[in-house]
Amino acid sequence: MANGGPEIEQLIQLMARLPGLGPRSARRAVLQLIKKKDQLMVPLSAALDRAVAAVKTCEVCGNIDTASPCGICADPRRDNGMLIVVEDVADLWALERAGVGAVKYHVLGGVLSPLDGVGPDDLAIDGLLRRAPEFGEIVLAINATVEGQTTAHYVTDRLAGSGARVTRLAHGVPVGGELDYLDEGTLSQALKARTAI
Amino acid sequence: MANGGPEIEQLIQLMARLPGLGPRSARRAVLQLIKKKDQLMVPLSAALDRAVAAVKTCEVCGNIDTASPCGICADPRRDNGMLIVVEDVADLWALERAGVGAVKYHVLGGVLSPLDGVGPDDLAIDGLLRRAPEFGEIVLAINATVEGQTTAHYVTDRLAGSGARVTRLAHGVPVGGELDYLDEGTLSQALKARTAI
Ligand SMILES: [Zn+2]
Ligand SMILES: [Zn+2]
Repeated sequence: MANGGPEIEQLIQLMARLPGLGPRSARRAVLQLIKKKDQLMVPLSAALDRAVAAVKTCEVCGNIDTASPCGICADPRRDNGMLIVVEDVADLWALERAGVGAVKYHVLGGVLSPLDGVGPDDLAIDGLLRRAPEFGEIVLAINATVEGQTTAHYVTDRLAGSGARVTRLAHGVPVGGELDYLDEGTLSQALKARTAI
Repeated sequence: MANGGPEIEQLIQLMARLPGLGPRSARRAVLQLIKKKDQLMVPLSAALDRAVAAVKTCEVCGNIDTASPCGICADPRRDNGMLIVVEDVADLWALERAGVGAVKYHVLGGVLSPLDGVGPDDLAIDGLLRRAPEFGEIVLAINATVEGQTTAHYVTDRLAGSGARVTRLAHGVPVGGELDYLDEGTLSQALKARTAI
């Protein structure tokens, strides 16, 4: 039998679907929420309501923000010197935390993965081809996994006619590693030592 | 600068206060929520609203449920043969998942910890003393930590005049371990082999 009534059981099941939380840690998280009802559960509930209402995907770059175009695309201090292409919003946020400079971004929304049925039409490649001619340099900051490298090759081929200079992050990124788990110094170094493809 | 606007940043900061989630995993969890807005974020927001409105602490045993007395205290299939005393609601839920039988519970709400300023008045000991005479046996299912053992000794002394038979879980519980992390078979075994104090 479920403990704590259907409302609590449902909350546990939803929390258990978040990355990093299994069933046991979801139960502990929900108990913590309930124990700190006024300091944590009520504010979290309100914050979720506000986020549900406010969150948008930027129609230019694919970033997640509360406006579209997002704060980065609309930032007048950023020029079109460098467009950094990432798999995922988490990677964009990691590069911003690393303070890589007044750059802009393009979120592909994944990598090519025939086994998972992810083809070129499932990624934001057409949007990238439209934006590419506006930029001096396109930096592919795609995870150093097999699928990431395949995607980088594919994107490079598609960009060949655009006249844009295409580079990739330097091999400071560990092979098989994921950008979002790197420390900020490594990310900065890898961008500084980027190489032509 | 914060990524994603103040609504998203605030959500990340609240999620990071849950046990098991640090700042990085909170960001990943929030991104997952946003990506699965309709399947995950909207239902979680609604479930939190419902839980905030519905959750109560049982005035009899200290369990968390949507009614007081809770479903366990109100369950007519449970008699007063055995009252199991636990530190925390998480331990009560763990024992219920282990299927330990038609028992009742009493949640102390912590353990004695002079260094943290937790004394007898901070725990639900008076309520336990009131309930004790109704029960055939009081089982102390308190974590096998130093503070847990100190608390068990203290509770046993206080129960001495009540005439109740006081037992503890068998030493199948690893020394220094926490109940909530044990597998269900170990918990069942430890209850079956309980010993008089
Ligand atoms: Zn944007
Ligand atoms: Zn109860």
